[in-house]
Amino acid sequence: MMREDPPRGFDPVEFKKRTETIQVAMAQEGLEGLLLMNEAEVYYFSGFQTPFWQSPTRPWFLFVPVEGAPIAVIPEIGAALMRTTWIEDIRTWVAPNPKDDGINLLYDLLAPLVKSQSTLGVMKGHETGLRMPLGDWERLITRLKGLKVKDATKIVQTARMVKSEAEIEKLKHICRIGSATFERLPEMIRPETPLQEVFRAFRTEALRQGADDVPYVVGAAAEGGYTDVISLPTMRPITHGDVLMIDSGCVWDGYFCDFDRNWAIGYADDVARRVYNVLWRATEAGIEAAKPGARACDLFNTMSRVISEFSQQSGDIGRIGHGLGIQLTEQPSLASFDKTVLEENMVLTLEPSLSYGTGLMMVHEEIIVVTACGGRLMTVRASEDLPVLFA
Amino acid sequence: MMREDPPRGFDPVEFKKRTETIQVAMAQEGLEGLLLMNEAEVYYFSGFQTPFWQSPTRPWFLFVPVEGAPIAVIPEIGAALMRTTWIEDIRTWVAPNPKDDGINLLYDLLAPLVKSQSTLGVMKGHETGLRMPLGDWERLITRLKGLKVKDATKIVQTARMVKSEAEIEKLKHICRIGSATFERLPEMIRPETPLQEVFRAFRTEALRQGADDVPYVVGAAAEGGYTDVISLPTMRPITHGDVLMIDSGCVWDGYFCDFDRNWAIGYADDVARRVYNVLWRATEAGIEAAKPGARACDLFNTMSRVISEFSQQSGDIGRIGHGLGIQLTEQPSLASFDKTVLEENMVLTLEPSLSYGTGLMMVHEEIIVVTACGGRLMTVRASEDLPVLFA
Repeated sequence: MMREDPPRGFDPVEFKKRTETIQVAMAQEGLEGLLLMNEAEVYYFSGFQTPFWQSPTRPWFLFVPVEGAPIAVIPEIGAALMRTTWIEDIRTWVAPNPKDDGINLLYDLLAPLVKSQSTLGVMKGHETGLRMPLGDWERLITRLKGLKVKDATKIVQTARMVKSEAEIEKLKHICRIGSATFERLPEMIRPETPLQEVFRAFRTEALRQGADDVPYVVGAAAEGGYTDVISLPTMRPITHGDVLMIDSGCVWDGYFCDFDRNWAIGYADDVARRVYNVLWRATEAGIEAAKPGARACDLFNTMSRVISEFSQQSGDIGRIGHGLGIQLTEQPSLASFDKTVLEENMVLTLEPSLSYGTGLMMVHEEIIVVTACGGRLMTVRASEDLPVLFA
Repeated sequence: MMREDPPRGFDPVEFKKRTETIQVAMAQEGLEGLLLMNEAEVYYFSGFQTPFWQSPTRPWFLFVPVEGAPIAVIPEIGAALMRTTWIEDIRTWVAPNPKDDGINLLYDLLAPLVKSQSTLGVMKGHETGLRMPLGDWERLITRLKGLKVKDATKIVQTARMVKSEAEIEKLKHICRIGSATFERLPEMIRPETPLQEVFRAFRTEALRQGADDVPYVVGAAAEGGYTDVISLPTMRPITHGDVLMIDSGCVWDGYFCDFDRNWAIGYADDVARRVYNVLWRATEAGIEAAKPGARACDLFNTMSRVISEFSQQSGDIGRIGHGLGIQLTEQPSLASFDKTVLEENMVLTLEPSLSYGTGLMMVHEEIIVVTACGGRLMTVRASEDLPVLFA
């Protein structure tokens, strides 16, 4: 198959730059080191990429000192792969080992921070988790008596929000693949195709278009609109009068797209058409407003004003867009609480939703990159009017 | 497409039974309640299944009291889906909300345990993680001053290790799909197909065979053997003299298969043939030994004895098999440290590996269910001799 793919991976210079950027922030925050353990951050700073994270058995650690190169503390099974990255200091143990899954190695690495009364940064804030056993963390911290630990969520999320040119190339590529898949989907389904087979057709076509994986496909189809946007599909056939929505996250070289499309099956009633058009125009307003200097909450307000033409009652999704990149959802949130100031090269989804009728909802979603002139679309823009299939 | 799929989902009776089983263990451990927050456990006890877990934005909680039905504390976006399960007490908040992502709801739920001086169970042991912000956990525990917290990892893992008939049906089904995919794969590739396209062919065929998703595909191809078993594929074409290995986790209705296949491309040298055969026979010995009463470490020893015919140096994978089910890897570990006594209806992978030559390794893997007569294969057994493609 011939495709014009961008290059995979990143130049080591990019990882050095990412590390230097976070080290500047660490110095400002008074952090001597940063202990990372989630898939996204380990990939971001090291380039270490493997589906093996899906096994919960083994923890993986990357330590970023305030000066110098990061240090990997990982299971031996990952050593060969880690050696292909720019990381040179790789410390391993044979895992799983319930008695010591890397804890002694971490203790040796972090003990000097206790001596020097330095502070360790750990991500313990909003939208994070602890990808190691809580008991191991508690034991480690108890042994490192006197270690000062500070939340480093904000500096890491801030660094990751603004994408590099190479990251934007990858995101553009996966958005192209997602758009081409949505474009082809109507040809692959029929008026009575069960929703499960619609999902299967989407996944298969996305792979054919060049996606490495299609880990996220959700959606729904029901008369006049749907009631839920996170469900797996049933065998119910899509039916005349349905609104069908597919929301998808495809991945290429570790970078996600995340956007949806809506179609009416056979026929669209006036309410569904109006809701769709309001959401389309809310997105349009969001695209225009996505300039450096605007805040995430400003985009939320701009889009909400258009939505309120129809109703004060938006969906219960809690926000109307978000960042994305290595993760399906990243910072910032397009929500009233998020004061993040937009910068050039942030990549965002615009995802306005509306509740209407008796428990129905509709969600519309596009992906943009913030530029001086407003948002530049990375997805092929959905049509202004609700498309009708099999009419 | 016509397939004889088992029914999706579970009868509510099964969730009640699972809950009662864990409640007996909780009573023995002196736990008044159990706070669960990982995808696998929330699915296991509630039936709540969504790819939405891939977004790290929102935490999800399920509280199992020592008596009575579980209580869900979840973002409003999941309420409609949770209402389709057997869970009736569903408490929601509009997430994301960085100021309070469910913490007040959890406080209200757990405060009575402080008053009654009861103990809360939380999974903080081996092979677990904390799927909520560590900072939120610390704040919650500080507010719940005096709450006794005890590690509940063992009782939950023990309950999940033995599979029900319905779970075994799902696992059989996904093993059938995986086996059929491996069977077809050689027809879909050619002597010079790049490894990336081999992976893509595998994923596409697995979907065609009926998998809901193919989240885990790793593998390698290199002359005489491979050096790494967790890497993503490159564009290097598979080449005469290579050993090609594909390891895969496909999913059906939330249940995983996890097994691999090896092929020589064009030609297999004597060492590769011998290594393959030793691993095949180690697996055979494991199948025979997998009877109730044997311990996980006994299986490890049995298989290791066969492996040691070739070499004392096994791979650096840390174990030679593991449980599986809702997760790609579950308890127990076939390792010297794991004394788990096997019971009927545990489902295990047998995954012996060998290091040989200059940094080469080979891994073989099958899936069995433990029965009174030894392991019953769920996968279609690999051939006894290393299969040679395009000879």
